[in-house]
Amino acid sequence: MTTVGIVGGTGPAGRGVAIRLATGGYDVVIGSRLAERGSEIAAQFSQTSGGHITGGTNTEAAGCDVVVIATPWESALATVKELAPLLANKVVVSMVNALTKVGKEMIPLYPPRGSMAAQMAHLLPQSKIVGAFHHLPAAQMENLNSGLEADVMIFGDHEDANDSVAKLVEAMPGLDAVVVGSMSLASAVEAFTAVCISVNIRHKAHSSVRLSGLH
Amino acid sequence: MTTVGIVGGTGPAGRGVAIRLATGGYDVVIGSRLAERGSEIAAQFSQTSGGHITGGTNTEAAGCDVVVIATPWESALATVKELAPLLANKVVVSMVNALTKVGKEMIPLYPPRGSMAAQMAHLLPQSKIVGAFHHLPAAQMENLNSGLEADVMIFGDHEDANDSVAKLVEAMPGLDAVVVGSMSLASAVEAFTAVCISVNIRHKAHSSVRLSGLH
Repeated sequence: MTTVGIVGGTGPAGRGVAIRLATGGYDVVIGSRLAERGSEIAAQFSQTSGGHITGGTNTEAAGCDVVVIATPWESALATVKELAPLLANKVVVSMVNALTKVGKEMIPLYPPRGSMAAQMAHLLPQSKIVGAFHHLPAAQMENLNSGLEADVMIFGDHEDANDSVAKLVEAMPGLDAVVVGSMSLASAVEAFTAVCISVNIRHKAHSSVRLSGLH
Repeated sequence: MTTVGIVGGTGPAGRGVAIRLATGGYDVVIGSRLAERGSEIAAQFSQTSGGHITGGTNTEAAGCDVVVIATPWESALATVKELAPLLANKVVVSMVNALTKVGKEMIPLYPPRGSMAAQMAHLLPQSKIVGAFHHLPAAQMENLNSGLEADVMIFGDHEDANDSVAKLVEAMPGLDAVVVGSMSLASAVEAFTAVCISVNIRHKAHSSVRLSGLH
């Protein structure tokens, strides 16, 4: 069975992905800079899931078959650079967005190579970088009874890696996978997260994105 | 009654907005570089609508109360610059996206000021620029029986102008208005159009974007 590690998995974004992956039957390692913190979060979720959730260090998470990067964007590149040898020859999923709050609005930032995923691809030439899980409302992801139904837009330059992430997503309750295209679309998918969050702040909602006409 | 002019209204994007605005009860002028072309398109639609659709030049369209810019992105800035005196003190709606096709994918281009709407705001300091109508599938927009149900994301730095465009959108069948925020979100909304079109090419679909959890 494929194991999935979540680097920076104790934050709200990573926790939701972890619990839904485990519910889909995968064994998940929630990684953290502090192993105790990973284990603490894993213990909270372990009873509700299908697969096992365990906690550990980011290094332990990076040892899994597939690795999801869920750290804050400010530390994502330093973190993956350190883990590069462990991530070689693997599918690495970036769910990182570069965003900042200005007033009551979340606005997108554009990294020098256009997107966080492209920055990661540059730092990890031996890994297959796939972007996914950007637009999902964290609180709804974590609560399996929230009624969440959302599309997960998947992109990357390796079609086989995109497809393998789509397969993971399809096993997760409430989520549908849509492969949108290559890394050329990374900036657009990542930046759109700012629109989703700003809409939720402005309209006091927990919206998620659905591409109607596809399903 | 508010009149709405569509500059560059004979293209697929403009036509769909024109027919749905007219169905919503607005009087619409479809503008074109060649007046005959505007009138020709207007005649095709005039029998199916609630309000009147007439054709004319882009200058005639720019004389309306609210003006929608629907030209190809390559000519949008030259066109609005020429029409600037007519557009002063008005709400000007940009539905323009800078995109280009690479292989089977549509990818976003980023204008120097971040977005086409921001470029327009720079050229038209006396107008209130609002972005809207970016993610809509043209063929479905034009066919009132297509069953289209989509969210129109509206942005701009003038809240009153955003709200007046939201009111227009709410009158159009099949469309819901969502004010997403300021011009700081323009690049993200515009660029996301590339994702929508790429998804449609890849999945042979006519998808549109829905923010579930808002309605």
